[in-house]
Amino acid sequence: MTTINIIGTGNVAWHLARAFGSKNEVIVMQIAGRNHKKLEAFKDFTRELVSISQLVPADVTIVAVSDDSINNVYNKIPFQDQLVVHTSGFTEMLSRKHTSNHTGVFYPLQSFSKEDTELSFKEIPILIEAADDKNEKTLRVLADVISDNVQVINSNQRKHLHLAAVFANNFTNYCYTIAEDICKQNEIPFDTLHPLLLKTSEKAIQNGPKQSQTGPAKRNDLNVINTQQELIKDPTHKRVYETITKAIQHLYGEKL
Amino acid sequence: MTTINIIGTGNVAWHLARAFGSKNEVIVMQIAGRNHKKLEAFKDFTRELVSISQLVPADVTIVAVSDDSINNVYNKIPFQDQLVVHTSGFTEMLSRKHTSNHTGVFYPLQSFSKEDTELSFKEIPILIEAADDKNEKTLRVLADVISDNVQVINSNQRKHLHLAAVFANNFTNYCYTIAEDICKQNEIPFDTLHPLLLKTSEKAIQNGPKQSQTGPAKRNDLNVINTQQELIKDPTHKRVYETITKAIQHLYGEKL
Repeated sequence: MTTINIIGTGNVAWHLARAFGSKNEVIVMQIAGRNHKKLEAFKDFTRELVSISQLVPADVTIVAVSDDSINNVYNKIPFQDQLVVHTSGFTEMLSRKHTSNHTGVFYPLQSFSKEDTELSFKEIPILIEAADDKNEKTLRVLADVISDNVQVINSNQRKHLHLAAVFANNFTNYCYTIAEDICKQNEIPFDTLHPLLLKTSEKAIQNGPKQSQTGPAKRNDLNVINTQQELIKDPTHKRVYETITKAIQHLYGEKL
Repeated sequence: MTTINIIGTGNVAWHLARAFGSKNEVIVMQIAGRNHKKLEAFKDFTRELVSISQLVPADVTIVAVSDDSINNVYNKIPFQDQLVVHTSGFTEMLSRKHTSNHTGVFYPLQSFSKEDTELSFKEIPILIEAADDKNEKTLRVLADVISDNVQVINSNQRKHLHLAAVFANNFTNYCYTIAEDICKQNEIPFDTLHPLLLKTSEKAIQNGPKQSQTGPAKRNDLNVINTQQELIKDPTHKRVYETITKAIQHLYGEKL
């Protein structure tokens, strides 16, 4: 049995609270946040809703707040000798005053939104890090309760994984946004592209992205490339087209 | 009952031959190609494997060859008064000598590969265009046999849809490639990102990509952006990071 507290009222906090709140192996003692209205949405997942100053020790206190706020929240936690972790991919494992060993990271790698009420943690990777073996073991036991994919990585690896996620999620999503714009401008329903979107991610998973690359840039088909450049009117879209086309041409070794 | 011929031995030809070859409403009369070895792989889908000069008329002859070759193949077809279509998103509907009405386009919008032996055409959009109503109707009847999503669009729309597909498939896949590179360089298994890849495309489909955008560029989080730029060593990756980050910042109206 592991007891936990959660600090934060955002999407990561909500999904962790919901996942742990339904498990017999974990007791969610307290959930803390500044925004009382947002905090109310967490009441079914925990024994008690509190403010940070009212927190009492638990085996693990999970700080699921924005990168900018982690340090500030750490300093407000009113106990010393219990493990405190954050959930950020970007921020290093932080030491806490007087209690440098009782720190760690519990990073669930997924794009969370509150609408996603069916989300299962089973396949979501949880990347953990701790200042010592005992705390690492505690985090692993806790993560194993909700996920089948728990890995230990260090802060430098996690920072790079988070960067990779920016390419794999933020940037791909922006490419979809451009595609949607082009469809709208030409009165084509965007859902015409939906099957292609799904197949693209499925193929990259099955065969690897390098193996799955197709298109005019890979073939160095200058006729198509030049015509498409002329079709694009938006200067921002044009810059994205040119930059990625050059990058793909470069990767696949065609003459530049 | 519609009779068809298929010209070409690539991935599009193969998947169309396989799809139509199993349908009672269609007879695949002949499949033609220059490469005899590749052509052999099509023998279960048709009555006869031939060279282009041996083709006999069918209701529809589908020319599934590269953009560069379409015109050349059209000129070799040894009959005049039957409908001939190509399968390209990029190439305009081409007229044929003496038979300008018997032309059209049959563009299945998907990323095809031969390994994908389980592929179902049901959800794959087929974009059709024809020079007159009679031929458009013939193409619609044919497309309806294999797909639940058949749309009529003109050459200009199709060209833009093809451009949108470059962003939605080629460019997203290249972003995955960079993500994989970063993982490899930091000894993180790429499959750690697989659930995120899937969720990203699913969310863009459910909520639309504009609604689904997250990340440091959208938040205009300069601390994360600057740190990530320093993390990236590969100059090509860095250019892609900077270009897309600026584009997202611009789209979401943050100060540049």
